[in-house]
Amino acid sequence: MSLALERLVAGTPIPFAGNRVTVVSPELAARFQPGDHLLVEQVSGELLLIPVADQQAAAVAIERAAAAFTALSAVSDEAISQFFDLFAQRLETPECWANIASANLADIERAKARGRSTTRLLADERMRNDMIAGLRAWRDAAPTRGKVISSVEHDGWKVEQVISPLGIVAFVFEGRPNVFADAAGVLRTGNTAVLRIGSDALGTAQAIVTHALNPALADAGLPAGAVSLVESVNHAAGWAMFADRRLSLAVARGSGRAVSQLGSIAQQAGTAVSLHGTGGAWLIADRAADATRFAAVVRNSLDRKVCNTLNVCLIQRERAVELLPLFLGALQQAGIARGQGCKLHIVEGSEGYLPAEWQNATVEVYRAEGYQTEALAEPLAEADLGREWEWEETPEVSLMVVDDLDQAIALFNRHSPQFTVSLISEDAQVQERFYNAVNAPFVGNGITRWVDGQYALNKPELGLSNWESGRLFARSAILSGDGVFTVRSRMTQVDLSVKR
Amino acid sequence: MSLALERLVAGTPIPFAGNRVTVVSPELAARFQPGDHLLVEQVSGELLLIPVADQQAAAVAIERAAAAFTALSAVSDEAISQFFDLFAQRLETPECWANIASANLADIERAKARGRSTTRLLADERMRNDMIAGLRAWRDAAPTRGKVISSVEHDGWKVEQVISPLGIVAFVFEGRPNVFADAAGVLRTGNTAVLRIGSDALGTAQAIVTHALNPALADAGLPAGAVSLVESVNHAAGWAMFADRRLSLAVARGSGRAVSQLGSIAQQAGTAVSLHGTGGAWLIADRAADATRFAAVVRNSLDRKVCNTLNVCLIQRERAVELLPLFLGALQQAGIARGQGCKLHIVEGSEGYLPAEWQNATVEVYRAEGYQTEALAEPLAEADLGREWEWEETPEVSLMVVDDLDQAIALFNRHSPQFTVSLISEDAQVQERFYNAVNAPFVGNGITRWVDGQYALNKPELGLSNWESGRLFARSAILSGDGVFTVRSRMTQVDLSVKR
Repeated sequence: MSLALERLVAGTPIPFAGNRVTVVSPELAARFQPGDHLLVEQVSGELLLIPVADQQAAAVAIERAAAAFTALSAVSDEAISQFFDLFAQRLETPECWANIASANLADIERAKARGRSTTRLLADERMRNDMIAGLRAWRDAAPTRGKVISSVEHDGWKVEQVISPLGIVAFVFEGRPNVFADAAGVLRTGNTAVLRIGSDALGTAQAIVTHALNPALADAGLPAGAVSLVESVNHAAGWAMFADRRLSLAVARGSGRAVSQLGSIAQQAGTAVSLHGTGGAWLIADRAADATRFAAVVRNSLDRKVCNTLNVCLIQRERAVELLPLFLGALQQAGIARGQGCKLHIVEGSEGYLPAEWQNATVEVYRAEGYQTEALAEPLAEADLGREWEWEETPEVSLMVVDDLDQAIALFNRHSPQFTVSLISEDAQVQERFYNAVNAPFVGNGITRWVDGQYALNKPELGLSNWESGRLFARSAILSGDGVFTVRSRMTQVDLSVKR
Repeated sequence: MSLALERLVAGTPIPFAGNRVTVVSPELAARFQPGDHLLVEQVSGELLLIPVADQQAAAVAIERAAAAFTALSAVSDEAISQFFDLFAQRLETPECWANIASANLADIERAKARGRSTTRLLADERMRNDMIAGLRAWRDAAPTRGKVISSVEHDGWKVEQVISPLGIVAFVFEGRPNVFADAAGVLRTGNTAVLRIGSDALGTAQAIVTHALNPALADAGLPAGAVSLVESVNHAAGWAMFADRRLSLAVARGSGRAVSQLGSIAQQAGTAVSLHGTGGAWLIADRAADATRFAAVVRNSLDRKVCNTLNVCLIQRERAVELLPLFLGALQQAGIARGQGCKLHIVEGSEGYLPAEWQNATVEVYRAEGYQTEALAEPLAEADLGREWEWEETPEVSLMVVDDLDQAIALFNRHSPQFTVSLISEDAQVQERFYNAVNAPFVGNGITRWVDGQYALNKPELGLSNWESGRLFARSAILSGDGVFTVRSRMTQVDLSVKR
């Protein structure tokens, strides 16, 4: 027996996570209107209010995507190829692009007026060409829908395992208007997509939908709503979208609390996710490390700040006197290459290995707010090894001297985002033991920056996961376009007398 | 900000599913003790109380399985093979089996005293031999741990995709003591298992653990807890186990409300599941059906009642006068083969196609309670086409005459458990259109009874899913032992100058 949730009363206890309870605040109770949804995030107990308008914006887009998914089962692979081609052609057309560019200009003006960053917002020629190239790559990609991956023959009958469309894929991208080329890729394998894009880029996205995406869908004979935008500027529309049980897969780009919250919402709806709440790669120098390799790896894993940039380095004590100066030199070089200094967080207990000139120096650090004068090396508690340094221009990294490889493995498994790790060691047995013992989907013996679907696998990357929420069942942590599928079994009986 | 859940107050509203609310009953409030857990099943709003003892029984087993999973990464494939061999040897040993048999006898006596069915409970020689054969098959199965499934070569570096252990797999089996041979199979690929077994068979299961499983683990050098039993007779221990976020996969056998509830619990914890709440196969006779094939398929899909037994048949109107008598004849033959009659549920509107002798006849139906006199054919509302007939000895099935294939597809997609369907049609284009349009993981052109991992794929089946809760990401609905894996990416850098 249940009723509609018509109101929230301040002070009402809300149980979550089995044995915890949170309480409805007066502010939340006042905001709640009949028809609104309340999500109880089961990890944190956070209460998320979804206004009815955002709930409906998400529901409408998903409803259409569900109908489009069914319709797509009767659409040929050739028609899907044609859609990608027509979409690309429209972006190439000057009149069409003029409409998009003018919407983009308006978005940028609005963002500037609100004091927001516009670096990723600009729909310039490079972004346009990347989108066009991306769509043409999907057009030319081999369709995997219906591909037989294995077959078992019996006397008088056989069973084939067949790659098949998965369903509706939801994407949340913040503030980047060029995401349609990525999201539309799921159509290649017969899936449909719903997207939420940050409010800053919404006008540009709507122009792309109106002037390029929707006409291309219609002209190719694909169902309307096969790729569609959730028409809301509010984060709550993203929550509503990720909470919908009709999704087959939820993908979020970027990292941080907003992304991990989206991940929790989708997971508690039973939906598979592709995202990483926290990024940052780890690097471990073994006692059998090659010093030259170590220095090169540090230098080449700090070229710019993305999720697979070196974030934490552990050096074994036996080699610390030799390797730590190489580490510091490589860190400095990485800063110099960007015309900047660098910034070190040294775990308490390891500071004795720092040269005197690092102990009390200061550095000008290029932060989002501009240059700040900070200590060159700051102490870090071991418990904070999991912090990801979201640096802008000044390379920033944590460093610790450890007793042995077992301690390094234990620290990684305890504090890291369970994401990317490299071990520098010439000892093959040690590499093997390390590979088996670390809880990370991405393990290497060199630079950390290789973790990227396009760079590593030569395939467009839709999403990238870590193992913060556990290992991924039957799949890689790199989600490529051809990875969005299910497997069906098809039985063909020839002999009519077949029976159990 | 959150607090421990110390008490439940009757009348407290509990929001769920976004916009619904349920209320704590006086009975639930009275039962709740500090330390107990409360699960809010988000589909139904059902409030499930987990007593602290059951919560802890599950937590202890999972804690041990987590430690064992880590330890297993350092255990060789040879040691794992030896474990399977030693486990089988122990079951072969007369003294060991005598202990198990006497515990089983006690279980059976208890079950009889409680008036419970004991058909699946008896640990006889056949079950013993099946377990031994199953364990030897796992011993001899090729280890897939560490298998490289693809490799991408770049200039100076490469990336390999590697099959890797997934984590902790939880199993719920009701009342069957022979499940260890199945569950232990996940060790083959480096995973660990926790099990809950129905209270009726718990004594037998504990004897197997004490006298065979645990000694085999120890003697082979495998970590204790790599396979372990949740020591509780209560269903709540199964809920606690499936609600634990440390699981990588949750498998339940059987069907019905208890199983679908377990599925909901695991899914809202973000855990992948392998189970089907409802079973029952559908069969559709197209206008281009071969009559002989149709009759053979009906006859051979009703040999006994399991999840892939024929449950609903739809016949196209154009062929109804010819095919419906063949259907009834095959149904009668299926009953005769078991020394029984048969039972038909005819959808309202189709009864006119029944011969006069079926309209008012009665039949003795063998139910769990014994023979019951019932109508041979009973009317069924179209909305009840999804009902699964859990017959004991008397074959029982629903029948409807439909206008065309589109109506049949729509009925299947709306009312079926999204599981198994066969289309009888000689028209290859119709078969293709049907295959693309039905939302089922298992589609065939013949008998429905083929859906079974061992029978269809020659591999031990750990679990079987339908698509009631959506399509399965990147996997088949048949879960085999070698299907319990994740994929890791391993990068090997040769050229030290590699950089982005």
